[in-house]
This record gives sequence, C-alpha cells and structure tokens, in this order.
Amino acid sequence: MLIVMNHKAGQKQIDAVISAVDRMGLTAAPIPGSERTAIGVLGNRGYVDDTTIRDLPGVQEVIHVSKPYKLVSRDFHPRNTIVKVCDVPVGEGKRPVVVAGPCAVESEEQILKTARAVKKAGADMLRGGAFKPRTGPHTFQGLREEGLRLLALAREETGLPVVTEVMSPDTVGLVAEYADLMQVGARNMQNFELLKELGRIRKPVLLKRGMSATLEEFLAAAEYILAEGNPHVILCERGIRTFETATRNTLDLAVVPLIRELSHLPVMIDPSHATGKRSLVPPMAKAALIAGAHGILLEVHPEPDKAMSDGPQSLTFHGFESLMDEIRRLNTFLGFEAAVEKPA
Amino acid sequence: MLIVMNHKAGQKQIDAVISAVDRMGLTAAPIPGSERTAIGVLGNRGYVDDTTIRDLPGVQEVIHVSKPYKLVSRDFHPRNTIVKVCDVPVGEGKRPVVVAGPCAVESEEQILKTARAVKKAGADMLRGGAFKPRTGPHTFQGLREEGLRLLALAREETGLPVVTEVMSPDTVGLVAEYADLMQVGARNMQNFELLKELGRIRKPVLLKRGMSATLEEFLAAAEYILAEGNPHVILCERGIRTFETATRNTLDLAVVPLIRELSHLPVMIDPSHATGKRSLVPPMAKAALIAGAHGILLEVHPEPDKAMSDGPQSLTFHGFESLMDEIRRLNTFLGFEAAVEKPA
Amino acid sequence: MLIVMNHKAGQKQIDAVISAVDRMGLTAAPIPGSERTAIGVLGNRGYVDDTTIRDLPGVQEVIHVSKPYKLVSRDFHPRNTIVKVCDVPVGEGKRPVVVAGPCAVESEEQILKTARAVKKAGADMLRGGAFKPRTGPHTFQGLREEGLRLLALAREETGLPVVTEVMSPDTVGLVAEYADLMQVGARNMQNFELLKELGRIRKPVLLKRGMSATLEEFLAAAEYILAEGNPHVILCERGIRTFETATRNTLDLAVVPLIRELSHLPVMIDPSHATGKRSLVPPMAKAALIAGAHGILLEVHPEPDKAMSDGPQSLTFHGFESLMDEIRRLNTFLGFEAAVEKPA
Amino acid sequence: MLIVMNHKAGQKQIDAVISAVDRMGLTAAPIPGSERTAIGVLGNRGYVDDTTIRDLPGVQEVIHVSKPYKLVSRDFHPRNTIVKVCDVPVGEGKRPVVVAGPCAVESEEQILKTARAVKKAGADMLRGGAFKPRTGPHTFQGLREEGLRLLALAREETGLPVVTEVMSPDTVGLVAEYADLMQVGARNMQNFELLKELGRIRKPVLLKRGMSATLEEFLAAAEYILAEGNPHVILCERGIRTFETATRNTLDLAVVPLIRELSHLPVMIDPSHATGKRSLVPPMAKAALIAGAHGILLEVHPEPDKAMSDGPQSLTFHGFESLMDEIRRLNTFLGFEAAVEKPA
Repeated sequence: MLIVMNHKAGQKQIDAVISAVDRMGLTAAPIPGSERTAIGVLGNRGYVDDTTIRDLPGVQEVIHVSKPYKLVSRDFHPRNTIVKVCDVPVGEGKRPVVVAGPCAVESEEQILKTARAVKKAGADMLRGGAFKPRTGPHTFQGLREEGLRLLALAREETGLPVVTEVMSPDTVGLVAEYADLMQVGARNMQNFELLKELGRIRKPVLLKRGMSATLEEFLAAAEYILAEGNPHVILCERGIRTFETATRNTLDLAVVPLIRELSHLPVMIDPSHATGKRSLVPPMAKAALIAGAHGILLEVHPEPDKAMSDGPQSLTFHGFESLMDEIRRLNTFLGFEAAVEKPA
Repeated sequence: MLIVMNHKAGQKQIDAVISAVDRMGLTAAPIPGSERTAIGVLGNRGYVDDTTIRDLPGVQEVIHVSKPYKLVSRDFHPRNTIVKVCDVPVGEGKRPVVVAGPCAVESEEQILKTARAVKKAGADMLRGGAFKPRTGPHTFQGLREEGLRLLALAREETGLPVVTEVMSPDTVGLVAEYADLMQVGARNMQNFELLKELGRIRKPVLLKRGMSATLEEFLAAAEYILAEGNPHVILCERGIRTFETATRNTLDLAVVPLIRELSHLPVMIDPSHATGKRSLVPPMAKAALIAGAHGILLEVHPEPDKAMSDGPQSLTFHGFESLMDEIRRLNTFLGFEAAVEKPA
Repeated sequence: MLIVMNHKAGQKQIDAVISAVDRMGLTAAPIPGSERTAIGVLGNRGYVDDTTIRDLPGVQEVIHVSKPYKLVSRDFHPRNTIVKVCDVPVGEGKRPVVVAGPCAVESEEQILKTARAVKKAGADMLRGGAFKPRTGPHTFQGLREEGLRLLALAREETGLPVVTEVMSPDTVGLVAEYADLMQVGARNMQNFELLKELGRIRKPVLLKRGMSATLEEFLAAAEYILAEGNPHVILCERGIRTFETATRNTLDLAVVPLIRELSHLPVMIDPSHATGKRSLVPPMAKAALIAGAHGILLEVHPEPDKAMSDGPQSLTFHGFESLMDEIRRLNTFLGFEAAVEKPA
Repeated sequence: MLIVMNHKAGQKQIDAVISAVDRMGLTAAPIPGSERTAIGVLGNRGYVDDTTIRDLPGVQEVIHVSKPYKLVSRDFHPRNTIVKVCDVPVGEGKRPVVVAGPCAVESEEQILKTARAVKKAGADMLRGGAFKPRTGPHTFQGLREEGLRLLALAREETGLPVVTEVMSPDTVGLVAEYADLMQVGARNMQNFELLKELGRIRKPVLLKRGMSATLEEFLAAAEYILAEGNPHVILCERGIRTFETATRNTLDLAVVPLIRELSHLPVMIDPSHATGKRSLVPPMAKAALIAGAHGILLEVHPEPDKAMSDGPQSLTFHGFESLMDEIRRLNTFLGFEAAVEKPA
C-alpha cells in the first residue's frame, strides 16, 4: 500500500500518518520526493483496510498497489528525473552522456591509459569492473578493492566520475567509498537485498536489465530502490537472452521509447554487451541515441586482443575516437544544445 | 556442391561442366550472376567426388557447401546487390526506401485513399495484404484476388510499385501478375516449396525473417531463392519472438549491420510488426535508418481504430507525414544524395 | 462465425441455413461431426449481424469466434477423438502407439531393414521422410517420389502403416497416394494453404508444433484442417526453440496434459527431435507416456553414424528393442488392456 | 586452475603444494573430497605457468579450467553424490524424496496444519518460504525470522527436515540456524556472493536453476559452492522462461537425464513453479520421477484459493494424498527398495 500526501502536507501531517500506520501493526516507510512525500506501507499480509488513514489531513490518495511498481511510473511522477553523477546530469541534460572504459580494471597502467584516452575523446564518465561476476569460479574475478583504488586514481587524474559494479549488500559501503555511480549487473537485477541496500544510500545507481527480465520486472526492480528512499536510479538495457546466437545478446532497443513513456527515470544503452561484436557497437550506439537514450556505455580497451574479458566487443582507442566524432555530429543534428567540444 | 566458374568462362565451358555433372547422375543448376556463373549440383546423397570436375576448363573452384548458404554471402559476391522494384532501386540507391500502406487491403476507398496519402507524403512503394495469413481460420483472410486488383488500381493512379504477400506456390503466378515486389511472410520463411517457386520467376522478393529464425536460417532461406536463379531478394527483419510481452515482438536491429557484413543483399526493417505499438514506430524507424537499413516498411491506415488488422501499430496519415519529414532530415544528415523532395 | 446445429437437425434444416448464409453474400462451409453439424461462415469482413440466422429451425447456437479455435476445443466436442490410421487407433486405443523409423528414407535396403526391425520390436507404424525440409538448399533434400515408393514397399512387406511428411499443397495428392498418415513438419505448421488442402482430403494428419508456436497457435493451426472438413488430426509436440543449447530443442512436455484438457484431439511426442541426443530419448519417451501422450515418434536407423540426417538422435535397432521392452512394462503398469506382445 | 592430488597424497604433500602456490602470489583453496583432495588456485589474472607445481610429490594433475565447471562434473567425481538432509538421503537413496509445503509460511496454523498433512501423506521434508523474493516491493515479503521459527516449530512436531530460501549472504547464518536444507531461488542462481557464503558453511544447499540459465551456467553456479568447500549441493529444475504463456514456465525435463550424465550431484524437479497450474502438477511429477529425478518439490496449501502466493499451482491436501498414492505405486514399479509405507 502506498499513501500519497498532497503537495502542501507538512511534517506534522506526515508524522500523524506514520503513527496511524504503526498503530495498525504495520511499518511506514516515508519516501520523500521533489514534489510530495509518499509513504510506503510494509508488513501487511493481505488486503489492508485503509479507512483510518484515507481521511487523515494531508492524505491525497491511498493506493493499493496492484502493479508491481508505482514510484517509478510516469503517472506518479510526470516530469523526467535527472540523475546527477558528480556534476554530470543524466536524463535530459545538455546532451546524452557517454560512459567508457574497460570491462575489467586489470592494472594501473591499463586503467590510467584508458581513462586518459576516453577523456581526451570526450567521454563523460569512466567505467571499469573491480568486482567481476563470472559464470564460473575458476576465472579472473576482478582486482576487487585494489581495482576500486585504481579507479579512484584514474578519476583523480582525469576528473571523470567513476562507474563500477557492486555485487552484494555487504560491499555496498566499500564500493560507495570509491564509486560515483553504483552499477547493478544484469545477474543481480533481482538481488532484492542488494537493491534495498542501495535504496538506503544516496549514491546514484545504474541498474542493468536482467537478461531475461520483462520490462515490468525491470521497472519493479527499480521500484525496490526508490521504495527505500533513493530516487537516483538510471536504467540500462544491455541486451536480452533469446534463441539467436549470431550476437551475444539481442539488443531490445524499443524499450528506450517505451521506458520513456512508462517511467520518469533516465535510460541508457550498453551496445557492447548487447552485441558482443566490435563492428556492431557504433551502429547500435547511434541507433540508441536517435531512439532517445539518455546515454550509452561503451567498452574501450588499450589492446582488446589481450583483454581479460570481453575483448571481442571492446573498441580500440582509435575506434572510440571515431565513434565520438560521429556522436558529436549526431547530437548536433538531434538539436542538443551543447554538443561536447572535441579537445584540441 | 557448388561449382564456381571463372569470369571468362564461356557458354561452351559451362555446358561441358553441366554434361559432366549429368554423367555423374546428378542435376546441374546453372546460376547466372553479374560477374560469373555458378553451377549448383543437386541430387547427391552424400559426399561427391569432384575429381572429374575440378580440372575442367573454366572451373575456378568447387565448393563442398558446409554452411547452409553460399550464394547470398558477401565473400561469394563482394559488391552490394541492388534490387530494382520497377524503377525504385533498393540496396544502395540514392537513399533508403519507404514502403507504406495498410496491413490489409479492405476496400477500394481505403486503399486508394491510403495510396494517395502515402504517395503525397513521399513513400516509394505501396504495401497492402490481399492474402492474409491469420492465426485462426475464422477471421478475415483478405480480399484475395479482389485485393490484388485494388492494389493494381492504386498503382495505376499513383505510380507507386506494389508490395503484397504470396502464401503458396500455386498462387505465385497469380500474385506476380499484380505485384511488383513479392512478399514472403514470417510464417512462410521456411516454406521451401514457395521459396523455390519464387526462385523460378524473375520478380523481386521481399523475404521476411521467421519469428524464431536464426540469422543463419534467414540467410539460408534466401539461398533457396538464389539457388533457383532469382538474385533479386530483399531481406526484412520484423521482430523476433522472445519472452518479452511489452512489445508485440522484439526488434533485432543489430542484424542490420550484421547482415551487411555477411551478405550482399539489401536489408529492410518493419518497425510496425516489430513493436506493435504506434508510438514506438517513429523512433525505431529512425534507428533502423541510422543503423544502415536500406529501407523501412510502415503500416499506415486512414482510420487505425477501424482497421481489420494491426490497427494499434498503424500510423495515421498525419503521423506518417510527420515521420516522413523527420526521415527526410535524417537522410540529409546521413549524406544521401537525393533526399526525396517534399511534394508541394 | 460458426453456426452450431442441434443434434436432431436434418439435412433440410442445414440446407436452409446454408442458403441464408449465401443470401448474406457470405460462404457457408458445413463441417460434419460425429454428434452434430457445424457450419463455418467465411468471407465476412467484420462483425456479422446474425439475426436472420439464429432463429432458423435446427440452429442451436451462433458463435462469433473470438478465440482462434473452436472446433478443436473440448468444450465444442467433449469426447476424445480417436484417429484411425489404417487399423491403428490413436487417441485412446488399447495403448499408446509407437511410430518408428529413420529421419529420411535413404535406400531400399535401409528402409526395408529398418521396417522389419521396428515391426519385429513392436512398432505400430513406420515413419520416414521422402520430402525433407532442410535449412539450406545444397544438402540432401530427400528421395522424393522414389522415397514414397520405397515406403509403400516397406508397408507391403511389414503391414505397418506409413507416416511421411508433405511439404506443399500441390504435392498433397501425390503423398496421399502413398502415405497413411500425412505429416506436417514444424516449419510448415502455419503454412495455411497446406493445412487447408489437407483439410479437404480425408487422410489423417499428424500436425507437428512449430518450433516457436504457442499452444494457442498450435491448436488454431489444427482448426484450419478441421474447418475444411477433416477431423482426423493428431497433434505432435517436438520441442520448442529456447535459449538453451545443451539439447537440440526444449521438450515442452507439460503441453500433453494441457492439450488433453483443452482439446479432444490426440497428442503425441517426438523425443528424438526434441532432445537431439540418443541417450535422452528413452527417459523422455517414458516421461511422455506417463504424462498421458497417446503415442511417441522415434527415430531409428540401422547405422546412426552413417545417417544422412539426425544420426546423433537416432536409436540403433538394439536401443529401440530395449526401449520397447521398457514401454511394454510401463504400459502394463499404466493399466492399458492390451500391451503389445513381444514377437517370438 | 585446479590441482588434483592423487588418492594417497597426505597432508604434508598438500601443504607443500599450498606453499608453492602462495610463493607464486596466488591463493590456494583446498577442496577436500571423499576420494581425493583438489586445490583450487585463485587470484590469477591470466595463464599461470604450472611448471613449479605439476612435479611436486602427490600431484596427480594440474587442470587449466577452460570449462566453467570441473568439481561438479562426473568425470572429476564418477560416483553419485548422496546429500543427506538430516537423515534423509537425496541422490540415490532408497527412493526419490518428496518435499512438500506452502509457497510461503503465512501463520502458525497454516504451517502446522500443512506439515501434519504432508507428513501423514508421506512427505520426506517440509518446504515453506520465510524470506520471499517478490517482483515488486509493495507485496507480502514473507514473515522473515518469525517464519523461520514457525518452520522450526513444525519440524519439532512432525520430525520433517525443513527447506527454506535464503536471499542474501548476510542472512545465511540466521537461516542456517533454522533450516536443514538451504534453498537458493531462481533469481539468485548467479548471486555469486551468496553462493560463496553457502560454500563456506556445511549445510546442504538446494540450488534452483535460474529462469534463463543454460545448463552450463547452472552447473557453474553449483561449482561456486563446491569450490568453497561445500559438496552438499542438490540441483533443482523449476521451469525456464520461454515465449510460451500457456504455462507459467516451461519445464525442461530433459535436463534430468542430462544432468545425471554430466554431473554427480542429485537433481530434483519442481513441477509446481514449472507449470503454475494445479492440474499439470501430478503428470509432471510422475514424468520427473520416471525420467530419473532424485526428488520433487510440491506446493501444498490448506486453502489454495486463499494462499498469499502461488495459489493456482498449489495442491490441496486431498490432491497431495492422491498424488502420493500414485507416486508410491510408481516407485514400486521403478524398483525402489523401500517405497514409503502409507501411514495408517
């Protein structure tokens, strides 16, 4: 159940509702928003009689949530949410953002070299995995905390905000010390304890769609984060699992305009994981932008042939520069005010 | 087995190879190409000893086809194939083509009205179903031959070439009397007898991808048409079947650049069937073009709410005009020489 | 629209309804059934006003079909349909039937040898492909009419009814001369012209589920055959296409009890195509029977390693005999009256 | 990398190998087995030169793991693993086991009533969710610790071992205090931190297949648990996600014999989640057993219509008793020594 307060409801009225919920033996979870406060009601084991609540002062509406999401929906919050990652706005800023970097942080040299190269070519953020989810336990699992430190080093030098994956509730604190944007990988999209933990911090979250998650499940996963009080969520489509094996996954690009209809949250595309093939990344990156994506994630590696993971889908520095040139031209065509300038 | 003749091989040498194949108890099927002739060998029940053939004069190479396709591959035919539908070139003409019209021809008024409207807005061809494949037998199955006549009427008035579906080998002749581009629907992509029959005529074919066909199977289906001697094939991705139900199908847009790598045949996109939702058609149409599609198919209806099929995904006349405006701007951006002029 | 006559309606009343339909400019297609006649109404382009019909004598009900199938549903025809293939009843006979044989007829020796072996081990029918649908055109396409003749030869010697695939409407007549049960392959499940042609003959049809067909589409495909007047249809699940590659397809066994709830038609299972792996065939065959399948199709080959197609999933003669022993024991356990006796 | 010691290798030799691994800057993780010890080597960032190790005394083989799993494979451990849950052996005991109970623990009355009923009908273990993973955050999330206490109460009264889900690494300890078999749900199959944590305890684990996990990924997930030292893993297939919507999921039953070929771990089937439909549960349960499953999980509820989750797929007490009667007969047919006796 969700109690929506009206715009002018003050703290006193909110507190009164919370007390009323407590008296019913349930738990009230206030969710402050930019326009009004909502109060989630947890702990119910079935239908809750709302008569004692719906007439309290300041209560606009009591919603018995039947859909698995409400807070992320555009009818609940009509205007676009803009998520700020350090000083980079995602969601309807001056232009779509580009996040670039290697799949995994492998060494100081590798990450610094890449950070400099993508910064020079115009990237807005640096990505790199420190904790790596791998199908089997016997392969490289990431540099872990050392990887986080190297990412911080790269940020220090280039000024690029850092995006990296967090894999479990108990490492949220650690990763949050280093990361500017906390990534939830596809395999963890329904790791609800992780989502709740990320809902309790105030860092922005990049939530990747599970490889066989429906759009409804994807939005409901984001709802977990918002319901705990963190509205700074960016959605990311990275290809779904289908019968087709010619590409690594199947990029479901139509969700970009569909998410923009259904939700106020920003949506990004990861064409590298979606296709698994370097030559397909530039056309899909451009297709994503023209379809309305608020940003793209790109894998870039100094020497893709020697990458410890995802080499075949990583762009070279040169390939990334060329793509950035194309993206700049496309952004201008699309009418974005401030297409990033190419550094001298 | 496929026997590739060299560029300079004359008819005499070709005939000698055919005779040699005959003497082996097999059937030779010459496949004339713009650059050289290939001779398909059919009727073998296992591995064929090629020693008597590979040393004949004019034979460049004997290929024991292990892949399910060869003639459609770019390594067999490096340059783009341009398929001409009446005077409209598809494949690398002056610009990508736009095929528009209703899902089904419903009446003279409906098809003429639509033909005039899409012509005025700048469409290159008219589409419309006369024979309709429907899940169950108790629903409208199309106007059949009457529908073909109405399409011809619309062509007469507007000059637009006509695209329509053919559903069985025995109606290929009938449909070919009226259609300029013969469409094979997704359900018939592996209707091999139909494909072979279409290989025997010289009309261009629009082959839609089966809803759960892999890219390899899709190209192999086209191979059936080419192997019978008809090289005028346009491929069309129209969404694949996945677990996702938020859209009617899942548009697999990454096949556009991938097909362009693997094959010399033109590739089009049908965003109407792929998404099943009117609002998603324009963004996916533009995404298709920037990804390199040689054309798009769009469903347009005078009154989508009253359409006998596919109403929810059909554009109104007004919606189509707006999209055409956007497409014109996009084509100019993409550097196509002759963006269609907007009629006065 | 479907007009259901009551039990006692005589030919006169039926004729009167047909005339009334004609006067409306529509086509009436009488569908005789064991219990009552239904009259399909075709040619309508939208909703049909049924007032002139529903009050005619003998009319029990006028159904505006919204579901894509009606005739195949159990609520239309509550009792199980038993399809007789020569003298072998399928659907609720004395026991489930076993159809066995090679994927493709390759030679007289191969098919005769196999026919004798499977007959000896207790098979009820012989299967073998004469017309083979293959992904690409350059591989063995079957012995075609010669294959049909060899199957007839094998029937003559063993007495086993013959099951073989028909691939196009124009070969229905030819195949029907030789086959006792006409198979429609998975790729042709929605080849509606083929289905209609099979509806016009009186031979039983084995309809395989398309590899990505929903259950509703599968039943609707059968409806095409029944709507043309042929009620002798056996459904066959042969595995669906999913993301999993460890097996050739994914056997969707739960459709067996589900089809038995929804439809009166018999349902069989093809564990050979479903799994693509010899060792998985016996457990899945037994699972099919205990789940309620009315029969199973098994690929058996004298020398699977040398088979021209589907070798890895074909049972050897010895493997087939062992499985038949197990099936006999299982049938007894399941309480079937007449478990086939093992020949001496 | 995995170092396999020979049968007779003593602790001294094992310690020497561990020291050698340490000197290479890597981490050695000894994995004791019933027949021999393996030593996992972690921390490598690429290929490791094994020359200093492969010649040490007691080393039988050094395996550079290319497949994502090794310890769970049958070639590594040829004999069946039997997992003991309290005194109930799973894997090749006297007969397959039956785990029954409600989807979620809802109240003391509900769980006690169900526990008594399933015990009486012959179940071997009691299942019930205390921590419930739900698509959206606004629905019932389980009774959590209270639910665990109620399960323990039910065990005390009936003697049935208790199976319940654990959702995060930090609750492994809490759940392990109450549960006898720790369930990992489909959504968490690749929650690697959870798997590792479960690898560090000694309680048996029931690992459910992810809804779009390939068989290889499923076995690799189990490998995570074994690699941390816990060999007591039971695999459970519960239906995969496909395009089909007639059933909740698609039961991939062929993995039962396939897992038994590839792995030594026991495999169970959950026909309730797989089908989502009560009437399909008994046929699929029996099919699972005849296909070789080591056990089945069944949802049973006192009043399915009032269940807080999964009502439509839950058996009534009466339905469960009938099914148990059938299972007893089937087990006898399958030759299991000690078919459970029906209590008086």
